Amino acid sequence: MTRGRFITFEGGEGAGKSTQVGLLVDWLRDRGVSVVRTREPGGSPGAESIRDLVLNGPPERWSPTTELLLMYAARADHLERTIRPALAAGSWVVCDRFADSSRAYQGFAGGIDTVFIEQLDTAVVGRDQPDLTLVFDLPVEVGLARALERGGGESRFESKGAAFHQKLREGFACVVADHPDRCRVIDATGDVDAVFARVRAAVEVIAP
Amino acid sequence: MTRGRFITFEGGEGAGKSTQVGLLVDWLRDRGVSVVRTREPGGSPGAESIRDLVLNGPPERWSPTTELLLMYAARADHLERTIRPALAAGSWVVCDRFADSSRAYQGFAGGIDTVFIEQLDTAVVGRDQPDLTLVFDLPVEVGLARALERGGGESRFESKGAAFHQKLREGFACVVADHPDRCRVIDATGDVDAVFARVRAAVEVIAP
Repeated sequence: MTRGRFITFEGGEGAGKSTQVGLLVDWLRDRGVSVVRTREPGGSPGAESIRDLVLNGPPERWSPTTELLLMYAARADHLERTIRPALAAGSWVVCDRFADSSRAYQGFAGGIDTVFIEQLDTAVVGRDQPDLTLVFDLPVEVGLARALERGGGESRFESKGAAFHQKLREGFACVVADHPDRCRVIDATGDVDAVFARVRAAVEVIAP
Repeated sequence: MTRGRFITFEGGEGAGKSTQVGLLVDWLRDRGVSVVRTREPGGSPGAESIRDLVLNGPPERWSPTTELLLMYAARADHLERTIRPALAAGSWVVCDRFADSSRAYQGFAGGIDTVFIEQLDTAVVGRDQPDLTLVFDLPVEVGLARALERGGGESRFESKGAAFHQKLREGFACVVADHPDRCRVIDATGDVDAVFARVRAAVEVIAP
């Protein structure tokens, strides 16, 4: 059994990640690939219950440290119950957000020591790093306008203001610089088809 | 303002910790000490909501890694919202379970790498280590019989069987050996008054 591939989608709010995850999953399945579509925080029953804790309530409900630990608790469960079994069975895993969101949100924008985040990542994710990470990039004002239009979802983060989201964008740029082997920046401006053409071009490098 | 003292109670199930916490808090208050009584997991609104996640459900709901991260997420919130503000205001904090329970439960009995636990502890607890830790010790069969008699509470852990609880007892013995400066073993056999006489003798060393 050939191990499956692990693709993650990252970036700020309103970049259209979820729509593009859906398009990529369909495209891969059309090519005969068995795909597990998942997301973070969440992706397993336990992790989804942690997600409810993290994403609900007022913006200052959790400190960045507590938030980071909850995210990695959810990630541990998600890896154990969903991602590792799927990859071992030969399926590809396409995940909407993963560990780079912790690096950008709690690390770069939240001010958590990056050494501590990498200690957590080594203990929890270990060698199961993504094969490919697509980092969706968009001017902050465009992303926030799109996110507000859409409504619902990750409201605790959306309510944090433009300065926070600008830091987030810089954080993701740092993630790309730190992991050039697996990260590809996707220009998320333009319509759905234009963006998906960029996604497909990035994935075709590893696609069957 | 003199910083308050931080006293933690540790040990296996059914050792009578909660009863003794109550007696110690009353005894300190009779001596004019301002005391905050608290517990883990929990001790702040956010940490209590994490407690509900950790302690409910079947024994294998969470892996030791996920459980450890949830415990330290709750601990971060508890420290930030309850313990540190109380100590800074000059109150004493008496806490039913704290980080040594993670060392014994998820570390020694759960098999988590102790290096990772100490990385978490450094990042989350840092210099706010307890001034005094009372480790309640009891033969496993006596503790489990008492816990079953009492019912309710920490049922996910109580259902894990005698072998688990034997490991736990050895784990707490290792904690004491690793932190001889702050840990005192309390023989938890005998009646409530006899045990409290031992607690008082240990606390009198630091009492006003």
